[in-house]
Amino acid sequence: MDYKSAGVDISSADAAKEKIKHLARATFNPGVLSEIGAFGGMFRPDLSRYEEPVLVASTDGVGTKIRVAVMAGIHDTVGYDLVAHCVNDILVQGAVPLFFLDYVALGRMDADKVAAIVSGFARACTEFGCPLIGGETAEMPGTYAADDYDLAGFIVGVVDRSRALPQGVREGDVLVGLPSAGLHTNGYSLGRKVLFETLGHGVDTHVPELGTTVGRALLAPHRSYLAALEPLIERRKVRALVHITGGGFQGNIPRVLPEGLGARVRRSAWQVPPLFRLIQSGGEVSDDEMFRTFNMGVGMIVVVAPEDLHDVEHSLERRGEGSFVLGNVIAGEGVVIE
Amino acid sequence: MDYKSAGVDISSADAAKEKIKHLARATFNPGVLSEIGAFGGMFRPDLSRYEEPVLVASTDGVGTKIRVAVMAGIHDTVGYDLVAHCVNDILVQGAVPLFFLDYVALGRMDADKVAAIVSGFARACTEFGCPLIGGETAEMPGTYAADDYDLAGFIVGVVDRSRALPQGVREGDVLVGLPSAGLHTNGYSLGRKVLFETLGHGVDTHVPELGTTVGRALLAPHRSYLAALEPLIERRKVRALVHITGGGFQGNIPRVLPEGLGARVRRSAWQVPPLFRLIQSGGEVSDDEMFRTFNMGVGMIVVVAPEDLHDVEHSLERRGEGSFVLGNVIAGEGVVIE
Repeated sequence: MDYKSAGVDISSADAAKEKIKHLARATFNPGVLSEIGAFGGMFRPDLSRYEEPVLVASTDGVGTKIRVAVMAGIHDTVGYDLVAHCVNDILVQGAVPLFFLDYVALGRMDADKVAAIVSGFARACTEFGCPLIGGETAEMPGTYAADDYDLAGFIVGVVDRSRALPQGVREGDVLVGLPSAGLHTNGYSLGRKVLFETLGHGVDTHVPELGTTVGRALLAPHRSYLAALEPLIERRKVRALVHITGGGFQGNIPRVLPEGLGARVRRSAWQVPPLFRLIQSGGEVSDDEMFRTFNMGVGMIVVVAPEDLHDVEHSLERRGEGSFVLGNVIAGEGVVIE
Repeated sequence: MDYKSAGVDISSADAAKEKIKHLARATFNPGVLSEIGAFGGMFRPDLSRYEEPVLVASTDGVGTKIRVAVMAGIHDTVGYDLVAHCVNDILVQGAVPLFFLDYVALGRMDADKVAAIVSGFARACTEFGCPLIGGETAEMPGTYAADDYDLAGFIVGVVDRSRALPQGVREGDVLVGLPSAGLHTNGYSLGRKVLFETLGHGVDTHVPELGTTVGRALLAPHRSYLAALEPLIERRKVRALVHITGGGFQGNIPRVLPEGLGARVRRSAWQVPPLFRLIQSGGEVSDDEMFRTFNMGVGMIVVVAPEDLHDVEHSLERRGEGSFVLGNVIAGEGVVIE
């Protein structure tokens, strides 16, 4: 007996590694000191412009968005989702990315599939200036079905301690919403259940109000707000950022509010995109549950001082970033959606 | 319809988060600036004693060792395995740990199971001085069976650039082996197939030559060699370290050898532990395949200059670490096992 007959094919893994090596190397910047294939990735951060550099690290997955990728046979977007998600998660602490690592676990090693997945990581890593310095690709027959897989991403960034967010949030601050591109990476278990089971759609079903197929609408990549927000953070125009991920509005907004403060969100401030409306009506999902599960078209909320609002809106507009004032910080607690 | 009926239970996730918070906080050291629950974990490294600090990052999983944990219903050891594995992976670059993050994905959220898993992470993080500053717990019905799960770990450490390993490996250097505690985290797909399918054992089968049950033998935790090796690295007595993981001897030893050098390993230098012999005989696995898949009782190989051998052996002995000279660096290429 050998390892291959037990379901683990090391030579197929080696083929995958070769492909990954080329993709990853294209994301490198001068901070990267190691070659792919070392036990650990080596990165020399340029900390000269920081008074008191603090490392900010985060990890995440893309949840069951992967199920949609598997159904649609499209594997080169979920990696992008994951990097964008991670970049946003440290951006809300005020940090910019240093490097990224990926974990890919599959039921059966497939060098082409792995290359497609990693190409998604690499595309995002290049876009966000965040080299892919390491990763693990694991073949795990028994845990995953042969054509199934899971991903985890890991990011490290840096922020000067005195500039870490949130900072100075107070009553009356304005909540500015930035549009999401779709479900991003949250709520897919509920979304899939409604769209595929209740409504009986397939990934290839073209839905007129979506203007595309269900599969493509669900796979729309998670947006990163790094480019739009980094200049504003630099100029200290941001008091807090809320990445609307798992837990939705009610779960995430309170994470940046000091004791004694809550938030009021006006539903009429923006148009909830068709995909969310389709899920809500198809599944008869309550408003409360929708806002607790999905981003509802708002990928990031920027908390700004009222006196900075005009400046912030102008800066976002110049970068082509849509925005809308969707509420305020209020005395009290929790999130009121009205 | 709501998120829970789609298989995702946010309140159960909240219960798990509370348990995680306490476990993680116990691992904190003064470098940790964030509370658990922030979007990203914040860590202020003390870099004052480094001339040119380089961050070393690595990610890994525990492979299908998790299948054994699920079969045995023992969930508080695989997290330890993962941290130990990651600590070793950056140690071989000469780096000591700064912090760790975990990714846990389950078929069904179970706060007690998550707490057991995270207690394994926390125990190892405390032992290795490597705070658990963040993580993600994802409920993914459909990807994982209800009682199944997968783990990924991410570690960041630091090394002075001029001290990064490997460094100066040359012909004639001595390979010193350090004993493993079992399979560590590699070869479980093959090991499980032979033990559970070919030999028909269960996790509770007591096997006399193992001196314990198959489950306990397979779940023996991955050893970290940080405590044994850090003093030797500090004193520049180590030229290279080889962590024997996926790919075994043939896959890992060449990773630290310069072009034109190979390694000779003498099988008679140590006693291959009973668990490996049982798998080899039970599965009629070739010698070559065994050394390519398993650590064969050698968790780490230390490459030392001949003139430092006595010093290294003495230092290891004083720390209670067993060791054996198992071979040499030779002219040529590849790994000769004789």
